[in-house]
Amino acid sequence: MRARIHITLKRGVLDPQGKAVGQALAALGFAGVGEVRQGKVIDMELADTDPVRARDSLREMCERLLANTVIEDYEIDLTG
Amino acid sequence: MRARIHITLKRGVLDPQGKAVGQALAALGFAGVGEVRQGKVIDMELADTDPVRARDSLREMCERLLANTVIEDYEIDLTG
Repeated sequence: MRARIHITLKRGVLDPQGKAVGQALAALGFAGVGEVRQGKVIDMELADTDPVRARDSLREMCERLLANTVIEDYEIDLTG
Repeated sequence: MRARIHITLKRGVLDPQGKAVGQALAALGFAGVGEVRQGKVIDMELADTDPVRARDSLREMCERLLANTVIEDYEIDLTG
């Protein structure tokens, strides 16, 4: 089973990387670009074939290691 | 219009960040974790409301700034 996890800064948390990207796009002449936010995506292969168990395990990975839940949100997608 | 862009290392390109995450998960006792790859996700607001033009513009942003197309792939999703 494959999983994709998105880890993004919570709304309201300052995102200097995203801001830098937005400014660089403006400097290159791209108009009409509003807020830019940058996060991480983690693609993972799992031996587990049970989606419920896999999702539980991924949630625990996010809580314990992958995300800093004080400032970051995570989303888990199982991609079969 | 909102867009989400995924920037991931091409297949075959060494991903030390992903490897480190995989090893940390194993050290924490998570079993059955196979290959782990880490990439970037960029969420962006665009003033453009035409999906075809927006996608063209995003493709150009990826080629010129956001992705290093020698070693990275990008995927563009328009999310309305």
